[in-house]
Amino acid sequence: LAARAISAIPRARTAASWLARQDTFAKRHIGPNEAQQQEMLKVVGVKSVDELMRKTIPASVALNRDLKLADPLSEVDVLKRLQELGSQNTVYRSYIGAGYYNALLPETIKRNLFENAGWYTQYTPYQAEISQGRLESLVNFQTVITDLTGMQISNASLLDEGTAAGEAMTMCINATKKKKINYTFLVDSKCHPQTLAVLQTRAKFLGVKLVIADHKTWDVSQPDVFGALFQYPNTEGTVEDFSALVARAKANNVLTVCATDLLALTLIKPPGEFGCDIAVGNSQRFGVPLGYGGPHAAFIATSIDHARRLPGRLVGATKDSNGNVAYRLTLQTRETHVRREKATSNICTAQALLANIAAMYAVYHGPDGLKNIASRVHNLAASFAHAVESNGHSLQSNVFFDTVNVKVGGGLTVDQVLAKADAHRINLRNQGNGFLSVSFDETVSETDLRDLINVFSTSDITTAGFDSVTASPKNHLSAFVRQTKFLQQPVFNSYHSETDWVRYAKKLENRDISLVHAMIPLGSCTMKLNAATEMAAVSWPAFGSLHPFAPLSQARGYQQMFEELKSDLREITGYDEISLQPNSGANGEYAGLVAIRSYHQAIGQGHRNICLIPASAHGTNPASAACAGLTIHAVKVTASGNINFEDLKAQCEKHSNNLAAIMITYPSTYGVFEDNVKDVCDLVHKHGGQVFLDGANMNAQVLQCRPGDAGADVSHLNLHKTFCIPHGGGGPGMGPIGVKKHLAPYLPGHSVVDTSLVGNSVSSAPFGSASILPISWSYIRMMGNAGLRSATAMAILNANYMKARLEAHYPVTFKGTNGFVAHEFIINTAAFDDVHITCVDIAKRLQDYGFHGPTMAWPVPNSLMIEPTESESKAELDRYCDALISIRQEIREIQEGKYPVGNNVLSNAPHTLQVVSSDGWNRPYPREKAAFPVAWLRDVKQWPTVGRVDDTFGDKNIMCTCDSVSAYAANH
Amino acid sequence: LAARAISAIPRARTAASWLARQDTFAKRHIGPNEAQQQEMLKVVGVKSVDELMRKTIPASVALNRDLKLADPLSEVDVLKRLQELGSQNTVYRSYIGAGYYNALLPETIKRNLFENAGWYTQYTPYQAEISQGRLESLVNFQTVITDLTGMQISNASLLDEGTAAGEAMTMCINATKKKKINYTFLVDSKCHPQTLAVLQTRAKFLGVKLVIADHKTWDVSQPDVFGALFQYPNTEGTVEDFSALVARAKANNVLTVCATDLLALTLIKPPGEFGCDIAVGNSQRFGVPLGYGGPHAAFIATSIDHARRLPGRLVGATKDSNGNVAYRLTLQTRETHVRREKATSNICTAQALLANIAAMYAVYHGPDGLKNIASRVHNLAASFAHAVESNGHSLQSNVFFDTVNVKVGGGLTVDQVLAKADAHRINLRNQGNGFLSVSFDETVSETDLRDLINVFSTSDITTAGFDSVTASPKNHLSAFVRQTKFLQQPVFNSYHSETDWVRYAKKLENRDISLVHAMIPLGSCTMKLNAATEMAAVSWPAFGSLHPFAPLSQARGYQQMFEELKSDLREITGYDEISLQPNSGANGEYAGLVAIRSYHQAIGQGHRNICLIPASAHGTNPASAACAGLTIHAVKVTASGNINFEDLKAQCEKHSNNLAAIMITYPSTYGVFEDNVKDVCDLVHKHGGQVFLDGANMNAQVLQCRPGDAGADVSHLNLHKTFCIPHGGGGPGMGPIGVKKHLAPYLPGHSVVDTSLVGNSVSSAPFGSASILPISWSYIRMMGNAGLRSATAMAILNANYMKARLEAHYPVTFKGTNGFVAHEFIINTAAFDDVHITCVDIAKRLQDYGFHGPTMAWPVPNSLMIEPTESESKAELDRYCDALISIRQEIREIQEGKYPVGNNVLSNAPHTLQVVSSDGWNRPYPREKAAFPVAWLRDVKQWPTVGRVDDTFGDKNIMCTCDSVSAYAANH
Ligand SMILES: Cc1ncc(COP(=O)(O)O)c(C=O)c1O
Ligand SMILES: Cc1ncc(COP(=O)(O)O)c(C=O)c1O
Ligand SMILES: O=C([O-])O
Repeated sequence: LAARAISAIPRARTAASWLARQDTFAKRHIGPNEAQQQEMLKVVGVKSVDELMRKTIPASVALNRDLKLADPLSEVDVLKRLQELGSQNTVYRSYIGAGYYNALLPETIKRNLFENAGWYTQYTPYQAEISQGRLESLVNFQTVITDLTGMQISNASLLDEGTAAGEAMTMCINATKKKKINYTFLVDSKCHPQTLAVLQTRAKFLGVKLVIADHKTWDVSQPDVFGALFQYPNTEGTVEDFSALVARAKANNVLTVCATDLLALTLIKPPGEFGCDIAVGNSQRFGVPLGYGGPHAAFIATSIDHARRLPGRLVGATKDSNGNVAYRLTLQTRETHVRREKATSNICTAQALLANIAAMYAVYHGPDGLKNIASRVHNLAASFAHAVESNGHSLQSNVFFDTVNVKVGGGLTVDQVLAKADAHRINLRNQGNGFLSVSFDETVSETDLRDLINVFSTSDITTAGFDSVTASPKNHLSAFVRQTKFLQQPVFNSYHSETDWVRYAKKLENRDISLVHAMIPLGSCTMKLNAATEMAAVSWPAFGSLHPFAPLSQARGYQQMFEELKSDLREITGYDEISLQPNSGANGEYAGLVAIRSYHQAIGQGHRNICLIPASAHGTNPASAACAGLTIHAVKVTASGNINFEDLKAQCEKHSNNLAAIMITYPSTYGVFEDNVKDVCDLVHKHGGQVFLDGANMNAQVLQCRPGDAGADVSHLNLHKTFCIPHGGGGPGMGPIGVKKHLAPYLPGHSVVDTSLVGNSVSSAPFGSASILPISWSYIRMMGNAGLRSATAMAILNANYMKARLEAHYPVTFKGTNGFVAHEFIINTAAFDDVHITCVDIAKRLQDYGFHGPTMAWPVPNSLMIEPTESESKAELDRYCDALISIRQEIREIQEGKYPVGNNVLSNAPHTLQVVSSDGWNRPYPREKAAFPVAWLRDVKQWPTVGRVDDTFGDKNIMCTCDSVSAYAANH
Repeated sequence: LAARAISAIPRARTAASWLARQDTFAKRHIGPNEAQQQEMLKVVGVKSVDELMRKTIPASVALNRDLKLADPLSEVDVLKRLQELGSQNTVYRSYIGAGYYNALLPETIKRNLFENAGWYTQYTPYQAEISQGRLESLVNFQTVITDLTGMQISNASLLDEGTAAGEAMTMCINATKKKKINYTFLVDSKCHPQTLAVLQTRAKFLGVKLVIADHKTWDVSQPDVFGALFQYPNTEGTVEDFSALVARAKANNVLTVCATDLLALTLIKPPGEFGCDIAVGNSQRFGVPLGYGGPHAAFIATSIDHARRLPGRLVGATKDSNGNVAYRLTLQTRETHVRREKATSNICTAQALLANIAAMYAVYHGPDGLKNIASRVHNLAASFAHAVESNGHSLQSNVFFDTVNVKVGGGLTVDQVLAKADAHRINLRNQGNGFLSVSFDETVSETDLRDLINVFSTSDITTAGFDSVTASPKNHLSAFVRQTKFLQQPVFNSYHSETDWVRYAKKLENRDISLVHAMIPLGSCTMKLNAATEMAAVSWPAFGSLHPFAPLSQARGYQQMFEELKSDLREITGYDEISLQPNSGANGEYAGLVAIRSYHQAIGQGHRNICLIPASAHGTNPASAACAGLTIHAVKVTASGNINFEDLKAQCEKHSNNLAAIMITYPSTYGVFEDNVKDVCDLVHKHGGQVFLDGANMNAQVLQCRPGDAGADVSHLNLHKTFCIPHGGGGPGMGPIGVKKHLAPYLPGHSVVDTSLVGNSVSSAPFGSASILPISWSYIRMMGNAGLRSATAMAILNANYMKARLEAHYPVTFKGTNGFVAHEFIINTAAFDDVHITCVDIAKRLQDYGFHGPTMAWPVPNSLMIEPTESESKAELDRYCDALISIRQEIREIQEGKYPVGNNVLSNAPHTLQVVSSDGWNRPYPREKAAFPVAWLRDVKQWPTVGRVDDTFGDKNIMCTCDSVSAYAANH
């Protein structure tokens, strides 16, 4: 029999079906193979996958059909198609600037970090003890930002410069003691246009009066003015002296925000030194590809007084249970998911990976290297300025860093210069009024400079002419010279050889758990496979080297991909239109709510301002609603986790006149498909409200049901969950939204690039973090109908299998009508109060098993929410279940008095290898019980590098840069 | 002062020198920065680098000038230039076959292994305890080979199929009991032509009569016949039944060698099942790019009886000091460097990285996946065969796997078909006599098949026609169907999802020390930086996808690069001509000796057959000489490690008439620049001999002195040492040779590709492992004169710095005239005999310090040879010195009786983390002393995963496949 099986060359039924490759991507993406599926179905107690789907997904929403998706491509074929698309993008040399510059990503950082799954498949460092590597790197980022801006404290990145400006405005709102009626935020008109647009959207729904005007006309003594923002150097390249203005503002209790440029700050006086309260900007030019708009890490920095108002993640040092320095996310109480409706920022996923790249760029170059780069850039600009002046053009300003704004003259018209530029495949920025600006960057070569000069000349420059204009460039920044040192800390002065840098990066990488080690079943986070094929195009210059404001005609490949992706997402969601602009889930929520509000305004219902949100919602939901100026009312949930329909009814009726929206999550954050989702939508609609359905749980829906069919009006999609963009240790992400037809006109437009929509910009870049969209596009293209349907089914099977195995050990309270869960489930850990064991202890103890814990204490207290995803094989699910069951047994030992409360393997978890090998071991349990509680840990184990972090200590003693950490370590 | 330093924008003296980037590659490549260099010079006791060079390198050979090398390019610019070169290569679809096939490297293997420095910067696993990952992977490779060939034991790779055939022939020579006069080796004429050529070279100088003839004409009963080799399937694609022939051979004590194809063997009866003694072949089509000829891993497998005759590295299981299974290089006594002049193979560096890729390809696809691929390939061939027959062509054979040999007919001429193919950018193989062959592979798509059919048709095939020829392809292999299963071991049936595979690969990677963790100062191995920029082009299809026998007109980019590289190497070595064919250092030695012998023959001195080799030479020197049929006489060395000039004189005089060559190493393997190297050359020349100067130590010479100037006639260059090709855990490498004019006509030619040279082929591919040459080319291009000169100087400074720091603790016996060493040095460890501590114990103890030990016990017993290379910074050198000094102190503690002989941190080293955290610790020293003897280990430490391996046990119990290991583990 065996022989027969082997000897038979597999043949197919139809003509040339043998021509199809057997090695489909879906088989590689999905963890359990068919045999394993059968075993799992038995444990779950159903006969087939179909039966499980029928019993899990309400018939009222079940899709039961194929969608209009292309036939699946193999991995090779998708790469070919991506190459074709890439070849339809035309990479001109960009001198457009406006906050985006060409940069050289050092090849070693590209290979060893940017393209390294050990870095990009990490989650946000919620489990600090197994995340010390990237936490250290993020402290490096924060140090780069504080040192260069001259501020005291920086967060660990924001989404882009525009939203960072928005967050800064919100900080000013919160910080000011002025009355919040008719209050005014001043913005200099020479800020980058995309920043202005994002600020306009933000201001509109917060009731802030945004005055965009030349800062020279500002009157900061007006009582309504609470904050002011300017760009330094400004969008035309001019470096202006804002110190007098800032002083005046300070005297009037007006907070000042400086939007600035990190490379310029290596040479010019930083905003912190002339009194600014907040600095924001983009760190992209520290090695990160343009990527047609992103992802890049924006930054925000401020003084220590405002630390608790800083949005986003903040990494700080604390001590661990052994008294050593350890890093963690600090001041978490400021955060979205904690503050909920009191939140003033909705930032959740940010740009950790890109912040790490920027930080490593600084580590690799060091202060002198950065200054050398900046000086060369400045010299390029200065030489160019000299050349164009000699050619009869004039300069708008003589004080610039990298950007020369040229009033075209010298016998040439703007159109002639632009035509010449085009012939040289060069993009300039048309500033209007006869001005063209040219922004220089580190990639510009001698040839490039010569080409640029020629573009602005009637005849080509001679060698002698070139030598003379480049001979000794003038310093145009002498009035602004930076006097202070920066980045003097050892980390920025130790790893300048490639060998040293690689080892430093590897040391950090190896301190962290990522998907290359083990499953990371964080509920609501969908940590699934990020396939190498999906990631490939992200590194290609054809996708990486486009400026976001390049003419659309140069981005045909991208535009084609966007059309295909939008079409696929429309099909998958059941919506009529998609916007790719929001660059995180929360930003998608915001964009969706903004669309709802705009729609209401358009139909004369602008007064509607109440948003209902179930108590179980993710923290970003109320936070986004707050950012959109909505008033939040919580809807109760039933004991089984469903929306309390009676309460909903009552609230709808009560708020009927002012009901703007409801935000629901489907399947719910309790991991349950609610049967009455359509009724909820109908009810809200009946009362004039719109339905925002949070798409973070799309991994339970794709090809099985659709939010649009359920009756929702708008959803965001976390492409960094369901659609395979890696989480990057806390970003990048992408949060496109889908809307029904009536909301389509209110999707985000862009102020620079024609998106055929105006207003409601939510991101700096027209298509968000465009360069990671090939990941999601590839995933859909390789999976097709059957693959996607099966992925969803397997995500649900995997969750139900784990639930079935764990149920006897930990209560699973929330289930659907037939007793099954969706793609995730919650185990209750409240039963161990008697022995002082909480979900945190279990998560920390899981680290001793080499695992990253599930989501802790959310959406219900003292629980763990487990989401395995479809990419995990049965073997890995079993390892995780075995670990949790073994931990349950360890808890029982405490309950039975075998080990004391407060001094046991759980309460002391995690155990570092230094602890388990220390000479002074004095625990009541053996070392091997601490270190190797199950046999397979002897084969492979990823260790925590610090003991349990002390959260209280860290929040009390805020240390968020390398300086303070080394000082702290020295004093300790 | 500080402020001034920062405020000054650096300006340069000359006109536009500020345009040059400050961030030069040389600064990244070289470890110590200028400040560190100054500190180190002080410790060394010289004022300047120049002084150190003057005092180290004999004035008689010192170069003291620039060479004709291009100005250095920046990393960006070298990548641009590589892109230009790549674009001059034209990638046609190749159906040439002949042992090289297109293959799909799974994207995840590409990213996570092929492009992962954690895998490619490892050394050959001489330190088994910190190499368990790749040792396991190599056991997987060996299992793939034995299972698919049906043989009992396989080695861990050879250089290419041609040299593997050569090694097989040598095995037959050694195994036969027949008289070795006039002895004959039969080779079927339908072997791949490049294999025939390599065999011809090998046979010529071993005195073997090579008879190339149709196997049907063989008479194996002739007494002179000791071995026979055939190809299965043969080079025309035909699968022949060799079982009767093999049986006849066996009856006549003639050993049979089957050159075969792994993919075919998934479907057809393997050679082991019809009695062959040896199987050889290329594993390239298991995922490895064509690379214009290499690198690829060849294989050789045999029965257990011949295990001790297998050349190259063999990985086997043994037990470790804790009684656990551990892998190691087994039966090392068979090896080159041990057997020296008694060696019958000179193989040293092989193709470990490529073997790992092939093994992982099997792990990833599993037996069913491999069979599916093979079946599809066969179906493609069958459909094509059917189509061409319908078009009036005829087939040479009806029994084929992937290659169809077509007698052109159907109204078309060979030229017409070739012209049509060219128009479709398709390469076919012209087999002569009106035959064109077409070899199919897994990359071929439906469109490709259609194009091929059209190339052989007068009019394009219709859809109906295509559907009918592809409907149900005939099985052309029914007479050969494989009946036995293969790869049933768990490792080939567990990691088929990408997630599972990535974690398996990461587990193995993390078990091994590589350059991403710490310096690996293996003397004579030059483990320097392998920069990401140097590695980039190796992954590009423009370099990876060319078939080695593609027309030269399609490889213009490669040819241009070869010319530039050869020109650079001529300059650097002082030789007149370079051959890029030898694909390892040892193969370069062989090629050089073959050139010498051919030259002697040409000038009527063919009787010269004596080769003088100093006792201190690397083992490959005598081994290569033996392979070239030379008789070796050892030359004595003086106590200070130099050649004993008196002995040399005596021997030259004694052997004057028969002196063929001397093989010397410069600087010597003792790490010393001998003053009289020119005298040595003169003397040997006077006696009619030629001088082979082993170039393995070029890292001490580049731009400081040149072997050609020293008077040598020929040298090999280990590009995988001095010229930055990573060592890959035991290959790939490249061993080009440089020769003086008179030897140039005797450099290796090629039988298929016009290299304008005939004869003396030493490798299967015309330009060796062409696809890794961009690495060395880039290195030279980015360094330029000054960079290279400085690299050599820093290699010497680093060695002298370590010597200066260590000298007080360990005797350094061998030094140059002024007391300095070259780029490496030897510390003597014989002084610890009293406490039973040897160099091995020190190397094992270094593992506890997170370090890879230096070269042990070579070239003198009980010593450690340390070569830091220029890429290590002072900080890393200091860490290593500190470790060795700390170990010296630990030895002193034993000597002082503090810890017992035989039970101390050295004799028990290395300590795994399981051991140091075990409950049953009963050592006389504390755990922390074992685990963390110095403070920085608490910051980062790479742990050994097994205790000390038991060499004796392993050599007695040979277990070289997963089967036997799991059986062994089960029985243990
Ligand atoms: C249910 C839910 N909604 C919204 C979000 C916010 O998405 P993002 O982190 O991309 O802003 C999350 C993120 O975890 C989530 O789980
Ligand atoms: C001095 C010397 N010669 C020759 C060789 C052989 O080179 P390969 O290993 O590439 O065959 C080596 C390799 O280590 C060596 O050190
Ligand atoms: O690898 C060596 O044999 O030197």
